[in-house]
Amino acid sequence: MRQAGRYLPEYRAIREKHDFLTMCKTPELASEVTVQPIDIIGTDAAILFSDILVIPEAMGMKLDVIESKGPVFDKPIRDVRQIDDLETENIVSNLDYVLQAVKMTKEKLNNRVPLIGFSGSPWTLATYMVEGKGSKNFDVIKSFIYNEPEAAHKLLRILADSIVKYLNAKIGAGCDAVQIFDTWASILSPTDFEEFSLQYIRYICENLETNGAPVIVFAKGANDFGKLAELKCDVLGLDWTRNIGKVREEIDGAKALQGNLDPTVLFAPKEKIKAETERVLRNYGEGAGHVFNLGHGILPKTPVENTKYLVDCVKELSIKQ
Amino acid sequence: MRQAGRYLPEYRAIREKHDFLTMCKTPELASEVTVQPIDIIGTDAAILFSDILVIPEAMGMKLDVIESKGPVFDKPIRDVRQIDDLETENIVSNLDYVLQAVKMTKEKLNNRVPLIGFSGSPWTLATYMVEGKGSKNFDVIKSFIYNEPEAAHKLLRILADSIVKYLNAKIGAGCDAVQIFDTWASILSPTDFEEFSLQYIRYICENLETNGAPVIVFAKGANDFGKLAELKCDVLGLDWTRNIGKVREEIDGAKALQGNLDPTVLFAPKEKIKAETERVLRNYGEGAGHVFNLGHGILPKTPVENTKYLVDCVKELSIKQ
Repeated sequence: MRQAGRYLPEYRAIREKHDFLTMCKTPELASEVTVQPIDIIGTDAAILFSDILVIPEAMGMKLDVIESKGPVFDKPIRDVRQIDDLETENIVSNLDYVLQAVKMTKEKLNNRVPLIGFSGSPWTLATYMVEGKGSKNFDVIKSFIYNEPEAAHKLLRILADSIVKYLNAKIGAGCDAVQIFDTWASILSPTDFEEFSLQYIRYICENLETNGAPVIVFAKGANDFGKLAELKCDVLGLDWTRNIGKVREEIDGAKALQGNLDPTVLFAPKEKIKAETERVLRNYGEGAGHVFNLGHGILPKTPVENTKYLVDCVKELSIKQ
Repeated sequence: MRQAGRYLPEYRAIREKHDFLTMCKTPELASEVTVQPIDIIGTDAAILFSDILVIPEAMGMKLDVIESKGPVFDKPIRDVRQIDDLETENIVSNLDYVLQAVKMTKEKLNNRVPLIGFSGSPWTLATYMVEGKGSKNFDVIKSFIYNEPEAAHKLLRILADSIVKYLNAKIGAGCDAVQIFDTWASILSPTDFEEFSLQYIRYICENLETNGAPVIVFAKGANDFGKLAELKCDVLGLDWTRNIGKVREEIDGAKALQGNLDPTVLFAPKEKIKAETERVLRNYGEGAGHVFNLGHGILPKTPVENTKYLVDCVKELSIKQ
């Protein structure tokens, strides 16, 4: 989860010289920071340095990423005309810089570890595009879907189609696996989740041309694992509020599970990091199908030493399982 | 859920003349805004106007409530000496203004509807006391519990004891039911939830002298309903991300359930409000044991007309169940 980033001094050294979007858009820089954690902390996979909001940006929405405040869209979507104005024809060519970053990263990785590419889900992207910035109560996007459901579905369909093209292109450029993040699944009731999020994730999963690349779906805070397990994907992501073993049981092993250590455990003393790592591994239990990971993104102030220690713990303790 | 508040013009008229804490501390004002929704929107119960942070404030922590930013503690707790310095002896007499507000509200209600009093859970109060303000990642409180578990447990024990005294006094002053809010249950792993939150909620439930007053526990985002159902309480609160019928089934009807309409549904057209109300009622199913409510606090910009319409819908549709 977001392995590259502010917790690494090597990342900060580059970030000081370039703004965030420039780093996303410059394949040399994006590939460099993508590879950093492989060399520094020794993870088993690399996740491409990028941002989920490159898609709306490529559709013509002006985006500012202010690190202390999060992303801000200049003109959030508030009516259907703005949706009609989104540029979708050239979405893949507008995002060519990502594909170049994939190719450059694959060269730098030189087959040491696989490379994961990602996209936000249609719902999560729409949330940012309509709210325009971070939100506490999400009343703007919710008002939008309740009062203008047709416009909302139009936007979500456009996004779903673009995401299919984008992820197919990423796989074509060399990504070994792709992940769909639905961070804001967590704010929806079960029926709204089905209507405004899950059906579009399902559509994406069914329309990807994966060429064998595993597809990971992470719908943070979604509760109906039975439904998620029916998706045409290979792995489900889990945050840290679940017992991974119980979810494994609930879905009867239908999917591999990715997760689920609380990222703040990396602020704990080493004994706690080791104990919690053991607990997650033990909760999952024996057999294959567990992609050990944090339950969400690594936090900016995380001590690098502890991150490295976690990776060592996982490697050591997994063998014992 | 937080019936009094910014969505009511009658509330704002009073709030314009007094700051938030003054309103909490002035029984005439607190009781007046508590009764407002009964007259204006017609709910079946009143919930005392107050704030969960009156407890740490009564323990000597200077609190500012800035409506656009949320609560801020001047000197957040960062070491055990500050915990030793908390004033706990006179917690009930320091909170006498709340008890006076309870008595005055009961007079104003004149037995029309019952009055609910509430407290934050030890964990949720500790989160605010240690973070000092709202947080995105909660890395300060998590670092605290992982690195100084003894100090954390000391703080949580002090809070649990104070909450028992506080809620007992509220019941003594006339509250007909009490609710324990654990808003930040949602940020804990299952094992951390048991260690740092649930055991203290359990302690409170077992040590309340309720005199028959129902106890409601709302652990937002907690996933193990089996464990919650073992608490010595009468009602469990549910946010809107669950199917209330499935939770009823999971706990085999062991507790009444309170919830679980998404508060943002009140921004929807009337047909959607009615349809969602029907859905929540239908999901719960037949028989007693459902306290219809929003799944979290009512939002500031909620149209009053829609709130009144919701109350009418619930009354009309409940009879049909």
